[in-house]
Amino acid sequence: MEAGGGCGLTRRQLLRMIGASAGAAAMYQAMSGLGLAAESSFRGPPSLQGAPRGASVLVLGAGLAGMVAAYELRRAGYEVQLLEYNGRAGGRNWSLRGGDRYAELGGAAQHCRFAAGQYFNPGPWRLPYHHHGILHYCRVLGVRLEAFVQTNYNAYLHNTEAYGGKPQRFRAVKADYQGHVAELLAKAAQGGALDGRLTREDQERLLESLRRWGALDRNYAYAAGRASSERRGYARDPGGGASARPAFSQPLRLEDLLGSRLWENLAEGDAYEMQTPLFQPVGGMGAIGEAFACELGPLIRYHAKVVEIRQDERGVTAWYEDARRPGGARRSARADWCVCTIPLSVLGQIPMNVGAAMAEAIAAVPYAAAVKIGLQFKRRFWEQDEQIYGGITYTDLPIGTIGYPSSGYHDGGKAVLLGAYAWGTDAMELTAMAPEERVRQAVAQGARIHPQYPREFDNGVAVAWHRAPFTLGCFALWSEEARAKHYDDLCAIDGRIVLAGEHASYLPAWQEGAVTSALDAIGRLHRRAAAGGAA
Amino acid sequence: MEAGGGCGLTRRQLLRMIGASAGAAAMYQAMSGLGLAAESSFRGPPSLQGAPRGASVLVLGAGLAGMVAAYELRRAGYEVQLLEYNGRAGGRNWSLRGGDRYAELGGAAQHCRFAAGQYFNPGPWRLPYHHHGILHYCRVLGVRLEAFVQTNYNAYLHNTEAYGGKPQRFRAVKADYQGHVAELLAKAAQGGALDGRLTREDQERLLESLRRWGALDRNYAYAAGRASSERRGYARDPGGGASARPAFSQPLRLEDLLGSRLWENLAEGDAYEMQTPLFQPVGGMGAIGEAFACELGPLIRYHAKVVEIRQDERGVTAWYEDARRPGGARRSARADWCVCTIPLSVLGQIPMNVGAAMAEAIAAVPYAAAVKIGLQFKRRFWEQDEQIYGGITYTDLPIGTIGYPSSGYHDGGKAVLLGAYAWGTDAMELTAMAPEERVRQAVAQGARIHPQYPREFDNGVAVAWHRAPFTLGCFALWSEEARAKHYDDLCAIDGRIVLAGEHASYLPAWQEGAVTSALDAIGRLHRRAAAGGAA
Repeated sequence: MEAGGGCGLTRRQLLRMIGASAGAAAMYQAMSGLGLAAESSFRGPPSLQGAPRGASVLVLGAGLAGMVAAYELRRAGYEVQLLEYNGRAGGRNWSLRGGDRYAELGGAAQHCRFAAGQYFNPGPWRLPYHHHGILHYCRVLGVRLEAFVQTNYNAYLHNTEAYGGKPQRFRAVKADYQGHVAELLAKAAQGGALDGRLTREDQERLLESLRRWGALDRNYAYAAGRASSERRGYARDPGGGASARPAFSQPLRLEDLLGSRLWENLAEGDAYEMQTPLFQPVGGMGAIGEAFACELGPLIRYHAKVVEIRQDERGVTAWYEDARRPGGARRSARADWCVCTIPLSVLGQIPMNVGAAMAEAIAAVPYAAAVKIGLQFKRRFWEQDEQIYGGITYTDLPIGTIGYPSSGYHDGGKAVLLGAYAWGTDAMELTAMAPEERVRQAVAQGARIHPQYPREFDNGVAVAWHRAPFTLGCFALWSEEARAKHYDDLCAIDGRIVLAGEHASYLPAWQEGAVTSALDAIGRLHRRAAAGGAA
Repeated sequence: MEAGGGCGLTRRQLLRMIGASAGAAAMYQAMSGLGLAAESSFRGPPSLQGAPRGASVLVLGAGLAGMVAAYELRRAGYEVQLLEYNGRAGGRNWSLRGGDRYAELGGAAQHCRFAAGQYFNPGPWRLPYHHHGILHYCRVLGVRLEAFVQTNYNAYLHNTEAYGGKPQRFRAVKADYQGHVAELLAKAAQGGALDGRLTREDQERLLESLRRWGALDRNYAYAAGRASSERRGYARDPGGGASARPAFSQPLRLEDLLGSRLWENLAEGDAYEMQTPLFQPVGGMGAIGEAFACELGPLIRYHAKVVEIRQDERGVTAWYEDARRPGGARRSARADWCVCTIPLSVLGQIPMNVGAAMAEAIAAVPYAAAVKIGLQFKRRFWEQDEQIYGGITYTDLPIGTIGYPSSGYHDGGKAVLLGAYAWGTDAMELTAMAPEERVRQAVAQGARIHPQYPREFDNGVAVAWHRAPFTLGCFALWSEEARAKHYDDLCAIDGRIVLAGEHASYLPAWQEGAVTSALDAIGRLHRRAAAGGAA
């Protein structure tokens, strides 16, 4: 076969067509296609030029909001100090690794016994591609990123009441739902049901698109055959050599699929914050907090439990105790201004002289319950036996989620997966248990999906966020009503104090909320400071 | 808020429910949910016990098929030698890096000037999770894997004739198509169009599922609002602090969407071979071939151009020339058996005494045309300006595809992307051009999607597979008819010769086809050899 023969004319046409492409019109058109300017509320760190000479800021909390604030304020010339409850920075940005100890409210202590290199993120575990603020700081701080697998077509959807409790591969459920929907709509169109809504020409285009998108056959049916197997997978995969002919698989019946409710989690990966690609820092989410701590090290006072916050006309004072010796001696820290990032669940219990509006806002927001459990197994059976590399299995069991690690693929030795990510009532029940009982629960429930669990289980840790002493909950659970009434008051500068954190954002639970909230807060605080304190 | 209060009864119920989970019944049920045994045609390398003492095999071609065959045959005790046309192993498993030279048919030579650490895969570039054979060898050879981003919701779909040539974000097109389809079907159901097909109860479930899956509002409409923006993205993203309120975006109209034909590439990531997660070897796909070459080094004779293959009753002889000195001295290699992995496009031109059936099969399969172009740019503008991290943009321009690198996220300095993956006629036209002209075309066309191209372009390489001397085409393009007529003859052992490669598989173009074809071929060859040569 000779290449390119007899294509001269077409080639000239092609060249003409392309000729205009570098021109100004195409340029402008393409430029206006770039989305960032239009969509993101992140415009880089705010310009903080003109910091008053010698001005100081006290930052309460060395989580991401506090450290972003401290990092930028110091860069702008402010004198900055941070008080942090824990013996480490990061807050909910946190990775538990072998050798770590964690004591929760009530005293139960856990000693993490993971193998070297293994970790578990009790808090955030993924970075969406459009969370420009947190990604900016990963870049600035040199935190290496790798892909986080959210949607895994080979992971499971599981409902204890459906298909005899047998987990179904995501790819099969997705292909079959999409195929049946496409067939139903195609048949409805052919029956005239869309005649009032679409022109005949658009209906022809719709049918053509449905056939391709839904993997329908020539008769617009979704049925066993090459088209559907090329989506849902084969009964026997195509292979090589003499006995390699594939066997087609049989789609799930629409009626069964609808009754199974497995469609509930089909669109998880379509959510703006869950869309491919997502990222994770290499070595654990905690790498971000750790990188910040390297930058800000000398400015952070650890084990500092804030017990009172007072502002006057000239500054703000925070009293704190050693968190390891409750009721011990009080010390104080003082600055001209204060950025307070303490979670509302904790802050509400700390005396602070702010106005009624902010005080009411602080009291108005409950915190979401969540429990995450990290389980170490003796081997990566999910990869070795079931070809699940990263991604998530969803189940209606209380554990809710099994998350497989998005790194170390094919590694030998022990490995850690997320054995539970429980919410609401399920989380509350797990919270009420001792940590080791939570781990037992996660193993017993997970065994219904992965029968290898009992034999391969090694050890585990369980973090119940309502028992985390530094947050007393997972994240701010804003109702629409509370937001309408209190959000602006929560964010407004009160005298010399401004709040920041995911709770002061439209992105609750996300690190991006903490970052953008901190940047917004220090921008406003700076303008006030530069104006000599005038509102 | 206090954790776990008053949940005692529910907790007991929960414990009862879980109690049975580790039992044998649940175990069995979950076990039977494991898919590998049922689906894959890969069962690990075949057992080759009982290799005849001193038996030898000549392997032609040190691509993946040839090296898999050589690796396993040597392990089984056969005496193995390989002849390879190129000065490197791997065949189409190949990464071009800075310093590499490549001369194509006709003499045009390219000198790759990529920066250190950058690469471009002219051949295969992704590993599906269910390609168990090739993944097995990655594991065995210690080839490290990382996630390959196929679907990127923030990349573009582009049609020169639609939306004034302005590229659209994948997330918007996907959300809007899915939403409109869901709305149409919901309205059709409400209008009674499904009454003959689904019970009332199933229709209720369908409506509930469509609302969630399609991001419909309470009235089953797909419209601007929170639900649709949470899929397609916002006009202004939610953020943190005082001025962080999101603004909803406006969906594309169904009629425009249907006319745009951008739906053509919506389901790419649903294809069995393109589903998340996919993988790539760290450092380039060529790492697999390089790892094999490390194992087999002394067995491979490079620059060996096979010019004739003759079998007799006792063995097979291949004559070869030095590929760098055409028409020079002929040498020969001989063994008891021969595994020939030379692409059919080349093999058809080499005299070989096989039966008519195999000869006809070899001649019956044309090779697909493809051109891939790697472009190095001065910076990662696709990440920095447009937040596209990995993944693929599809366009109706001849370049077909722009593939962004799935590694080195956030790195400073130069970076390489796939600037074209052209097929069929488009590929033939590019093949007819000189390499530097192909690169110019890719830059000019890509500029219609990324206006940064002309300013940021650094250098490029272009591989037109029909001009690759070692393959003369990209992969075997089997028609259904040719397969029905010739496939079994192609795979059957002819005397002492068996063929292997992606062309001898039901997975053309995929490395998995080469691997499974080789394993099947040597399994059969071994059985014949162990039986003393009897068919």
